[in-house]
Amino acid sequence: MQKRYLLAPGPTQIPPEVLLKMAEPIIHHRNPMFETVVEEVRENLKYLFGTKNEVLIFSSSGTGAMEGAVTNMLSPGDKAIVVRSGKFGERWANICKAYGVEAINIDLPWGDVLDPGVIEKALKENPGVKAVYTQATETSTGTRFPTKEIAAIVKNYPDTLMVVDGITGVGVFALPMDEWGIDILVGGSQKALMLPPGLAFAGVSDKAWEFNKNSKIPKFYFNWAKELDNLKKNQTNFTPAISLIIGLRESLKMIKEEGLENVYKRSEILANATREGAMALGLKIFSRNPSPAVTAIYAPEGIDGQAIYKTLWKKYGVTGAGGQDQLKGKIFRLATLGYADKYDVITAVAAIEFTLKDLGYKFQMGAGVAKAVDCLKDL
Amino acid sequence: MQKRYLLAPGPTQIPPEVLLKMAEPIIHHRNPMFETVVEEVRENLKYLFGTKNEVLIFSSSGTGAMEGAVTNMLSPGDKAIVVRSGKFGERWANICKAYGVEAINIDLPWGDVLDPGVIEKALKENPGVKAVYTQATETSTGTRFPTKEIAAIVKNYPDTLMVVDGITGVGVFALPMDEWGIDILVGGSQKALMLPPGLAFAGVSDKAWEFNKNSKIPKFYFNWAKELDNLKKNQTNFTPAISLIIGLRESLKMIKEEGLENVYKRSEILANATREGAMALGLKIFSRNPSPAVTAIYAPEGIDGQAIYKTLWKKYGVTGAGGQDQLKGKIFRLATLGYADKYDVITAVAAIEFTLKDLGYKFQMGAGVAKAVDCLKDL
Repeated sequence: MQKRYLLAPGPTQIPPEVLLKMAEPIIHHRNPMFETVVEEVRENLKYLFGTKNEVLIFSSSGTGAMEGAVTNMLSPGDKAIVVRSGKFGERWANICKAYGVEAINIDLPWGDVLDPGVIEKALKENPGVKAVYTQATETSTGTRFPTKEIAAIVKNYPDTLMVVDGITGVGVFALPMDEWGIDILVGGSQKALMLPPGLAFAGVSDKAWEFNKNSKIPKFYFNWAKELDNLKKNQTNFTPAISLIIGLRESLKMIKEEGLENVYKRSEILANATREGAMALGLKIFSRNPSPAVTAIYAPEGIDGQAIYKTLWKKYGVTGAGGQDQLKGKIFRLATLGYADKYDVITAVAAIEFTLKDLGYKFQMGAGVAKAVDCLKDL
Repeated sequence: MQKRYLLAPGPTQIPPEVLLKMAEPIIHHRNPMFETVVEEVRENLKYLFGTKNEVLIFSSSGTGAMEGAVTNMLSPGDKAIVVRSGKFGERWANICKAYGVEAINIDLPWGDVLDPGVIEKALKENPGVKAVYTQATETSTGTRFPTKEIAAIVKNYPDTLMVVDGITGVGVFALPMDEWGIDILVGGSQKALMLPPGLAFAGVSDKAWEFNKNSKIPKFYFNWAKELDNLKKNQTNFTPAISLIIGLRESLKMIKEEGLENVYKRSEILANATREGAMALGLKIFSRNPSPAVTAIYAPEGIDGQAIYKTLWKKYGVTGAGGQDQLKGKIFRLATLGYADKYDVITAVAAIEFTLKDLGYKFQMGAGVAKAVDCLKDL
């Protein structure tokens, strides 16, 4: 018998009540029963994204909404600032390239602290930049970026949009779009929303809708203006991933019942306990500005990070994530977002201890979980 | 108490065993457990599409794969022949337009028989046409198009691709790609594959992959070449709709166990019984070449087709579909694809009888179900 524990930064655990709702007989989407669901989902997405505007729903991976945040706003030849400090920052740059947008890349070493001043400098040096593309959390490094501060800078540039990939951020920590001046906030279903992958979201500001009017990049499946027209009628432009939207209603209800402030506090405490537990074993945290969503931990000297990730998964039943690209073998990652509680963190830290023991690392068995329990006592 | 019966042309009913598989705790996609699933799915999709080539899997609505069949094959300024004889033919034309492809539209009255000779004539008159875009079934009218015959014509044009929207066709009747010379066959999860919407498919011929090399329309989320590279490693380019792929494994297994020939025969018999049952009530079938996937039935003189559709749904628990666009109010539709059996057809015909009685239509009560039962006796 091996019970399995999913603690990866997406997909994340799905509450059984959500799984069961999605397992009910499917309903038709061009139908008042479904429209009632969409109406409720629209309201709760606005609450989650902190906006009075509609939050668009796409049947795609989160990347589909990232693509749309380029193709629905810009035109070929436009310039955009992209923060590249991990795999997902690189994705923004690759999307821009694919659609003929000139990316002005701010290359920050992976895991480093992003200084908002760098964005300001780039905006000054490159007049006419149409958008700044960033991450709320760079998932590949477990790093949180200063979204509020960057948004405050971009706000002063009427011809520039502030776009945030919040796929690993929305529902983990506060990203109030309207209050901070985020023009586009992208989300995905398989993170803090506690659903399977297959839905993407985009909150869109009035300023962004103005940009949309002049965008000349071709689009069809990800046509945001048409999606908005449909959404206002509680519909979608094309047949949506119905069962995921049924699940979304449930997960949004759960988030609303817990209250966003409590959800954010929980993630913060869980991530802190993960970091403290790891450090109590003598491990080092990779990011210099760790996100509450996911913790990237350095493999100790002489031990392969992929061996840690694989042993955690294969022998100890805990699915985390390894390092990607340049970080492969150097780090392993454990998430604390969505349907995660204190016992998940204790499980994760215990599994790290079992794993490191196996791999010959010297430490005081139990020191990690002891520290984690202490950090979690008030949750 | 009102039991509900879903007999719409997508989404369709989902077998309980598939629903329950999808309700199991989710697994991570960058993981050997998931790769085993993809490996099995790849083999069974090849069987279903009748091809030795890979069938690509996208996390999107079927329209996403239709878009990709334009953006991954053609370049701006290219010419393509599009058969417009319903809502989905129009979609091909709209996708072409969005991406700067010149559509040569063959406009056939909705529901009419498509003469393959018309395609041949258009190909001769328009040298340099890069693709012919058609439907296997035009879902909006319940009409089957002569895919085999058109493919045989296009085969003679080495610079032209034969592209079929088989969203309402794959798994309903034979569309053997390699044997017939279909270059791209598009499918969707929510039809004969007995799954929720959210996955799209595309079988791609060697000829089409050659076209892909020269295609200059920009793409990122629907980049077929990158998707193929990943699929060969039992992976997907971006985080896939994992739970739907888990369900897909089950539904493909069920299709394989029944055997494609039996699946096709079942749909044929069910559709015939639906048509015969309706005609026994004095109703007329809309399409002049009806598809076994979905039956479009004329509303009788003086009765609104939308009233029939709504009464069926609201009072009698049967979800069919109404007419779309120019057919709104004129027809109603009932599907016989996927997880549909003889009792579904009898239920549908009985519900039509109850509904028409309510709406004041004169007929012999029971005549429809009596005829349907007779047609179904050998299934």
